[in-house]
Amino acid sequence: MKEVHGGNIYKYDRRMYDFSANLNPLGMPEEVKRAIKENICAYETYPDTENRELTAAVSEATGVPGDFLVFGNGAADLIFRLALYLKPEETLIISPTFAEYEEAAKAAGSQVSHFFLTEEKGFRYDERAEEAVTDCTDLVFICNPNNPTGLPVEKEKILSLAEKCREKGAVLVIDECFSDFLEEEEKYSFMPHIKDFQNVVALKAFTKIFAMAGLRLGYAVCSDEKLIEGIKGTLQPWAVNTPASKAGAAAAGLSDFVEKTVEYVKAEREYLIAGFEKLGIKTYGSKANYVFVKSRADLKKDLEDYDILVRGCGNYPGLDETYFRFAVRTREENEYLLRCLGDLARKEKL
Amino acid sequence: MKEVHGGNIYKYDRRMYDFSANLNPLGMPEEVKRAIKENICAYETYPDTENRELTAAVSEATGVPGDFLVFGNGAADLIFRLALYLKPEETLIISPTFAEYEEAAKAAGSQVSHFFLTEEKGFRYDERAEEAVTDCTDLVFICNPNNPTGLPVEKEKILSLAEKCREKGAVLVIDECFSDFLEEEEKYSFMPHIKDFQNVVALKAFTKIFAMAGLRLGYAVCSDEKLIEGIKGTLQPWAVNTPASKAGAAAAGLSDFVEKTVEYVKAEREYLIAGFEKLGIKTYGSKANYVFVKSRADLKKDLEDYDILVRGCGNYPGLDETYFRFAVRTREENEYLLRCLGDLARKEKL
Repeated sequence: MKEVHGGNIYKYDRRMYDFSANLNPLGMPEEVKRAIKENICAYETYPDTENRELTAAVSEATGVPGDFLVFGNGAADLIFRLALYLKPEETLIISPTFAEYEEAAKAAGSQVSHFFLTEEKGFRYDERAEEAVTDCTDLVFICNPNNPTGLPVEKEKILSLAEKCREKGAVLVIDECFSDFLEEEEKYSFMPHIKDFQNVVALKAFTKIFAMAGLRLGYAVCSDEKLIEGIKGTLQPWAVNTPASKAGAAAAGLSDFVEKTVEYVKAEREYLIAGFEKLGIKTYGSKANYVFVKSRADLKKDLEDYDILVRGCGNYPGLDETYFRFAVRTREENEYLLRCLGDLARKEKL
Repeated sequence: MKEVHGGNIYKYDRRMYDFSANLNPLGMPEEVKRAIKENICAYETYPDTENRELTAAVSEATGVPGDFLVFGNGAADLIFRLALYLKPEETLIISPTFAEYEEAAKAAGSQVSHFFLTEEKGFRYDERAEEAVTDCTDLVFICNPNNPTGLPVEKEKILSLAEKCREKGAVLVIDECFSDFLEEEEKYSFMPHIKDFQNVVALKAFTKIFAMAGLRLGYAVCSDEKLIEGIKGTLQPWAVNTPASKAGAAAAGLSDFVEKTVEYVKAEREYLIAGFEKLGIKTYGSKANYVFVKSRADLKKDLEDYDILVRGCGNYPGLDETYFRFAVRTREENEYLLRCLGDLARKEKL
């Protein structure tokens, strides 16, 4: 079994402080819990293959036309469906980043190349990535803000990349699964431009912002209806189960919850970063709900002794086992983490 | 959008009597509803990619070793994963049958051929199907009991087919998603032999027997651990969401509920078949929770006027629009159906 992601709390015989999964520290909204419970009877019958209720709710909340939307069993599901539908020959990935882009491209039979953002530039986006888009490139993946670094790319730069992809006949996938956590999302999100670029697919997830990772729900947005229909027609017809669909419909309009989350995460991220820096742990300026750091290779193992799970980044192409990603959690959890790191520092294990 | 299955109750503006989806007429067990509600907090975190709890529950209930099991987002999901993993060049399907075998094989780039069971033989299994398995065949699908006919194949015949597939180097998929509804399941199910045939994959679903179609949960059983690991590694790592997983773990051991269902469905199936025959509608001896019939092509449309949904079989290769599949429902619903059919008969529309 591959175990390349955070959130694997199941292999431990005890409750862990999970800093390895990037979920909203405020937890799942009550409205979502209620929707799951109240709709039990609807779980007997087959899900709506066209997700009418969910489509209407998301369309209303975001202003994106329903025809531009396709839902999946988490954003990861859509990455695979998209690749299987497009059958790219050459895929370019702006790396280091989420592992499933490469997995999905390979599952669809594609060659994969990486444009690596580097330590010297603090892993910031480098516009020379555009030069890696050639006539042979069919599919490009970029994650904004990037996972695991938490660094967002200004939308002007993404627009330029999208234009280059259009010139070269490539589809650009912009994974905005963490964009809801950004303070100035409008500076980064491509959504307002999606209607102008038929070659761009934006990905969004309910998983992270609404802490509903166990429900698996994400969606893709694209103005090319042929592409949307193609993704819908790939794999089984019932991609989204009904609890996920009901939860999503209940969550879609919760803009106050999202605002509250952004504020909370900002304060806690700054608290964590200040704590890390005080301990001499190098950080890279994340703007998301996780903090990317460089430390000692043994840190993951050492923190497990304190019942703390952290995402080691050794299996990301372009990184090594000295890089880590910490989710921003509640104040209580974040305090505990910093206390344990302080303890490790005193033992000269940091 | 493809709309090739039953259960699409969402396109109507009114509540329909749904005879188009083959779900347990007793509905979802209370234990399952309770498990979904009680575990709400577990839906915040990522699902267990290895489905430890569910695997243990199913292994205990069925006696199948956990290593032989892989779970999916419904059996349909597993059909696609299996095909994508195996990448067959030539796939043989014993038809007429469930449409997703062909969809999945084609999605994996396979050629597809059919061995057709015929009207003259009452759509009963024909052992000459074995002759269609050649050196070039990579993958064979058979559904037992078959959907849409409801006819089961004795396991001796399946054993012979499995042996032929082994000789020819083909994987045989036996879809037993409806076998729980059979009175003498032991005469038909391949499960006791799964350990002796590494080239056989049996499919099972929670969807039908536990009326949890909205939750999407099924599993594959195979004694070839390489194949099991291969299916697990195909597509995204979180195939089963947590409500489905908790529901499945709660359902797995409910053998009394299954027994009660088998008795209930037997009585109602016999009631329906007697009613159909009295009206001169030809039936084919289904042993499952649905009845396959031949009638007038307009029947589906005519029944919609009575708020009744039925599965027209016009889009099954090997059938035409004069064939229909009726789910066995509750006595009240079945009575209503027969009353409406009687009404159509009086109007000479039958």
